[in-house]
Amino acid sequence: MNQWRNFKEGNWSLNIDVSDFIKRNYTEYRGGGEFLSGTTERTDEVRAEVERLLIAENEKGGVLSIDTDNVSSILSHRPGYVIKNKDIIVGLQTDEPLKRAVNPFAGYRNAVQACQAYGYEIGENVYNEFKYRTTHNTGVFRVYTDTMKKARHAGVLTGLPDAYARGRIIGDYRRIALYGMEHLIKERTLDKKRISERNMDADNIQLLEDIEKQLEFMKQLVTMAAEYGCDISKPADNAYEAVQWLYFGYLGAVKEQNGAANSIGRISAFLDIYIQRDLDEGTLDELHAQELIDDLVLKMRLVRHLRTPEYNNLFAGDPVWVTCSIAGMCEDGRSLVTKTCFRFLQTLYNLGPSAEPNLTILWSQKLSEPFKRFCAKVSIDTDSVQYENDDVMRRDFGDDYSIACCVSAMKTGKQMQFFGARCNLAKVLLMALNGGKDEIHGEQIAPEGRSFDEAVLDYEEVLEAFKMYASWMAKLYVNTMNIIHYMHDRYAYERLMMSLHDVEPERLMAFGISGLSVLTDSLSAIKYARVTPIKDERGIIVDFKTEGDFPKYGNDDDRVDSIAKWITEFFYTELCKTKAYRGAKHTLSILTITSNVVYGQKTGATPDGRRAGEPFAPGANPMHGRDKDGALSSLNSVAKICYDCCQDGISNTFSITPDTLGSDEENRISNLVNVLDGYFVQDAHHLNVNVLNRQKLIDAMNDPTLYPSLTIRVSGYAVNFNKLTKDKQLEVISRTFHEKM
Amino acid sequence: MNQWRNFKEGNWSLNIDVSDFIKRNYTEYRGGGEFLSGTTERTDEVRAEVERLLIAENEKGGVLSIDTDNVSSILSHRPGYVIKNKDIIVGLQTDEPLKRAVNPFAGYRNAVQACQAYGYEIGENVYNEFKYRTTHNTGVFRVYTDTMKKARHAGVLTGLPDAYARGRIIGDYRRIALYGMEHLIKERTLDKKRISERNMDADNIQLLEDIEKQLEFMKQLVTMAAEYGCDISKPADNAYEAVQWLYFGYLGAVKEQNGAANSIGRISAFLDIYIQRDLDEGTLDELHAQELIDDLVLKMRLVRHLRTPEYNNLFAGDPVWVTCSIAGMCEDGRSLVTKTCFRFLQTLYNLGPSAEPNLTILWSQKLSEPFKRFCAKVSIDTDSVQYENDDVMRRDFGDDYSIACCVSAMKTGKQMQFFGARCNLAKVLLMALNGGKDEIHGEQIAPEGRSFDEAVLDYEEVLEAFKMYASWMAKLYVNTMNIIHYMHDRYAYERLMMSLHDVEPERLMAFGISGLSVLTDSLSAIKYARVTPIKDERGIIVDFKTEGDFPKYGNDDDRVDSIAKWITEFFYTELCKTKAYRGAKHTLSILTITSNVVYGQKTGATPDGRRAGEPFAPGANPMHGRDKDGALSSLNSVAKICYDCCQDGISNTFSITPDTLGSDEENRISNLVNVLDGYFVQDAHHLNVNVLNRQKLIDAMNDPTLYPSLTIRVSGYAVNFNKLTKDKQLEVISRTFHEKM
Repeated sequence: MNQWRNFKEGNWSLNIDVSDFIKRNYTEYRGGGEFLSGTTERTDEVRAEVERLLIAENEKGGVLSIDTDNVSSILSHRPGYVIKNKDIIVGLQTDEPLKRAVNPFAGYRNAVQACQAYGYEIGENVYNEFKYRTTHNTGVFRVYTDTMKKARHAGVLTGLPDAYARGRIIGDYRRIALYGMEHLIKERTLDKKRISERNMDADNIQLLEDIEKQLEFMKQLVTMAAEYGCDISKPADNAYEAVQWLYFGYLGAVKEQNGAANSIGRISAFLDIYIQRDLDEGTLDELHAQELIDDLVLKMRLVRHLRTPEYNNLFAGDPVWVTCSIAGMCEDGRSLVTKTCFRFLQTLYNLGPSAEPNLTILWSQKLSEPFKRFCAKVSIDTDSVQYENDDVMRRDFGDDYSIACCVSAMKTGKQMQFFGARCNLAKVLLMALNGGKDEIHGEQIAPEGRSFDEAVLDYEEVLEAFKMYASWMAKLYVNTMNIIHYMHDRYAYERLMMSLHDVEPERLMAFGISGLSVLTDSLSAIKYARVTPIKDERGIIVDFKTEGDFPKYGNDDDRVDSIAKWITEFFYTELCKTKAYRGAKHTLSILTITSNVVYGQKTGATPDGRRAGEPFAPGANPMHGRDKDGALSSLNSVAKICYDCCQDGISNTFSITPDTLGSDEENRISNLVNVLDGYFVQDAHHLNVNVLNRQKLIDAMNDPTLYPSLTIRVSGYAVNFNKLTKDKQLEVISRTFHEKM
Repeated sequence: MNQWRNFKEGNWSLNIDVSDFIKRNYTEYRGGGEFLSGTTERTDEVRAEVERLLIAENEKGGVLSIDTDNVSSILSHRPGYVIKNKDIIVGLQTDEPLKRAVNPFAGYRNAVQACQAYGYEIGENVYNEFKYRTTHNTGVFRVYTDTMKKARHAGVLTGLPDAYARGRIIGDYRRIALYGMEHLIKERTLDKKRISERNMDADNIQLLEDIEKQLEFMKQLVTMAAEYGCDISKPADNAYEAVQWLYFGYLGAVKEQNGAANSIGRISAFLDIYIQRDLDEGTLDELHAQELIDDLVLKMRLVRHLRTPEYNNLFAGDPVWVTCSIAGMCEDGRSLVTKTCFRFLQTLYNLGPSAEPNLTILWSQKLSEPFKRFCAKVSIDTDSVQYENDDVMRRDFGDDYSIACCVSAMKTGKQMQFFGARCNLAKVLLMALNGGKDEIHGEQIAPEGRSFDEAVLDYEEVLEAFKMYASWMAKLYVNTMNIIHYMHDRYAYERLMMSLHDVEPERLMAFGISGLSVLTDSLSAIKYARVTPIKDERGIIVDFKTEGDFPKYGNDDDRVDSIAKWITEFFYTELCKTKAYRGAKHTLSILTITSNVVYGQKTGATPDGRRAGEPFAPGANPMHGRDKDGALSSLNSVAKICYDCCQDGISNTFSITPDTLGSDEENRISNLVNVLDGYFVQDAHHLNVNVLNRQKLIDAMNDPTLYPSLTIRVSGYAVNFNKLTKDKQLEVISRTFHEKM
């Protein structure tokens, strides 16, 4: 096959095995960024048009336009371009850049409300088309129990993907480039035939129906590409086609699905093989190699979904999490760093900082120094990069996993995730103290238990009550998730994305904790200080009198850090006691994205001294301002949380002032590399790095025109600071900016 | 509660238990038909209008009109009347009598083709409404394996409900009258709450979603009745309301579902309680009691579904199987015969013979003589009644079961059925002889095995091959059914009908055998005569040379009857080896309805001397003309098939000439009663009784105007002879008309 010329054969030539292809054919790069190119004139022209569009979008309140008549799907719109004949990598979600389409499959009312929020009405034909078409949202609410609805309303189970698409599923888009769709369709047809031999129990019937839907959409993808003049039925012949074919797969996925996070996977070493072959064959030079990546990244920056204001409230800044996983180690001891890893990072210079794609460095102690330093430099310059510990993830996920959304690792094309948002454990503590009642509305949510008196709390008694309610909550949580994902599979199944997985992928069900630091410090306060509850006229505990000092999470103090560690282990163990839908393996994350603000709003005062309604810290972060012992102590505390029971990720967002990091650029780079190595060598999992001063954010808040493209890492993703609502800006500003190492 | 005045309380007052209500309150009637009334003037007027409509329908080719724009559902049409203000029992499926509505949920293409067959096009809005709405048919064909499609195409698995709604589910419509919808909705809501306490595995989630759909449609039914001016949220207050409330339930069911057979259940003793109370209270007299039943029956005769010509080919005469189960015994030793059983039979005199409702006598040895004789008289006069053996069914189903369709017993409101059409076992024998190939198309369907030579067949070898292929086929059959019913539940669930069942009914999966007598006689020929296969140029056996005589099924000869008995037991055992969807219990019927003709067309020549394409005998009948030993021997042969492994029914259609039955009416009645007692005392299951001469049918075929309402029992149901196609008329004429006792 000419498309595979000069590739070393292996298992990948016989079976679908992209990882094997990569290992046999990639060229590790151990140098620095000195080879990189700037932009072409064409790139500058397209980029200028993209910027014009982004400004126009912003001026229109965040949404440029909506097609209210055509339900988004792979073939719903004619080809669209940024600048026709100037785009190298072609393909938009609709026929015009930044025009959003309605996608009611996950929730019809959501689609209506999203239109209305921007002054549109959903088309009458869409109404008719959904007359008998149940949506995911309808399905879920048919089955939700009263208790689930109460827990959801109170915000103790929160951010659940029950009205929007779940996301966090990564198609292995590389397969399209390597094998071509014709071969993939043939293989999936054979899969179906093989599974047809089994007895037809409900599981196998469901799987076979899934496969048939996949095949339908695989064929549609070929048609979509053909409308852009490309024949993706055959494998990609060169670097341009490899990038284009892969992007078509991703584009089809985001046309079909408006999932919360549609990540693109781990593509740099893969694409590097094609680029390197073209370079070797003399058909490409570095300038145009960079241009390909630049153009792909420009397209990624234009991906949009139509969201409701409520959704934006949880996940601020209109993110789509086009998470792009870069680097990491190969199991054979080489790093997976290629020149194309550099090229992706270079787009932050060529095209300017940006929240998307969500560039994620898979950090290993063994990565080459030049690459580490280049990453650190990009972080310092752009605040647009996050780091995740390849050395711990590789143990569980091998060397071809990708990150979905913020911190969720999965074996590319071999695992998928049922996304499960999070449980507010700080609220569970308050519920335990209030005998199962919600402290805000006073409603009985959990079974009625002892309501604690207005007397100094006994730690052991509180712990017993907490364990009982957390255990009850874990069961409710798994059952709620089971309903959500049953219905999502039934009414909003990801046909194309799942077609780019192995036919029977391993399933992960990703639970989450929010309020970890609040709960930890609260338990510490009860244990080490004297905490007395204060009740209101309803008999509900609404505040606490806390006397004496207590150790606080974030200062490398084992007395309290051990509580945080115990909480995650306990809750994970409890979750595992209830079977998950479709045989999924339970996983857990400590991640709040930006919803830590909303969660705080829905949570009463806590024994740690946090007032009612105050934001939580994001993810696994210590509470703002409490990690006073300096940057390293703060990192050391978070590093103690064990990845084994938090395989869906432990998110830590870290801000340090430039001066603290180092006196000059050279110094800052070295120190940041040392911080990362020192953090990750302790098996810590994730770090968002911001190198900036609080004052800069305050200035930007007061005058958005000062820094129009100011990008910061919030919690597992980057965001344009100006797109945040004021309360979220204030919360970011209130976070710890380490001024002491 | 005033509606329950004068009723004896019991478990039914506390829990939903219609059977308990009946037993405590019904009045057994042991007299004869002397009390019965004729029609009122009003009945005659409405009946005349119904007849006018039926003639108009017939003149239009079988379909009077179609509403192609409004998809049939409970609330899809405004109220309709035969004659407004003259109808006592109100309610039509659409806004005009005999106007049919489209119902694409089970199969969109089917709905389109059904419209086209009668010169209509389905509405464009319906197309849009089903743009994203998967139908049952689409779901099934997504998952069908190649082998299933081949088996279906060859006609070895045949009549499968994969393109039309499955039917055979009987809502317990009596509950509406007894309890009112408000109470039923409340109880179902409590059921949901109770089930919500369980862990949310896929089974419980499915059940909870089902329940929510039920609740939605229960509320719609209340609205539909309100549009007719009736408040069914409360229990029925008198006989009129009891009939009307019950009928509203049935009407809602047939508006929502176009299932093959939507039977009405066992309602006579129930309604009799209300009628008797009104009679006792002096608010009703016999004339008007009969008028109520007459009007209900008139409405039942107007039930229609829109069918394709292919469907009519299988189930001739446009049947809907409004099967109405009458009589039977109560477990306490009383018969369940009430005056209202007589009233239902009386409609055949008051309104004339008719195919619908499908009046089914649950026969017991212990029924009173006057009732037995009245039934026999009705049979002789109208050929519109069938008989099923209450003494065997009561053992398995208790005393409150109903018959769905032809012969399928189920506990009313406590069991439901997954209908499974049938497997052509005569074809399986040919397949076994041809090493797994279809004898018509030559296609390899089953795994390749030994193809028998053109030499005298060895019985033991043939039997081994048949067992192997029948066993393989049984597994394929169960798996095929599992797919069908998974998809039907998913895309065409019977919301209203299932709401009128217990929340977790027992499920029966009803398999079927066709070609029993052909297979039996073929095996007998191989065993007792010398059978030599004849192959064509493809090497496929297409004919047989049969030398010598052999015993034939239908002559009370154990040598061959034991083969028939063994076949059913063997096949049932094999079916049970593969688990059925949703924990269903396997059942089996020997029933072909009128599709014995089509099955014959699709089956090559058989060793019993039957030529290729010749019709099979219907159901469990001996082959036409081979049961030469007289009526009783024929019946004795069929009686040997054991009900224990054929709990879905063993259908026998029996025709005897009036002269053979007796010299005068008195004689005929006595003899028919004796025939029935003699047949059923052997634990036989079912008998269709026709008392007529072959010549009458020949005359009717040649000149349909001679006997415009000639009704005959075909196979589990009655049909207007003139509605049969010529090939089916010829087949009926070719059947055995016993001229010897």
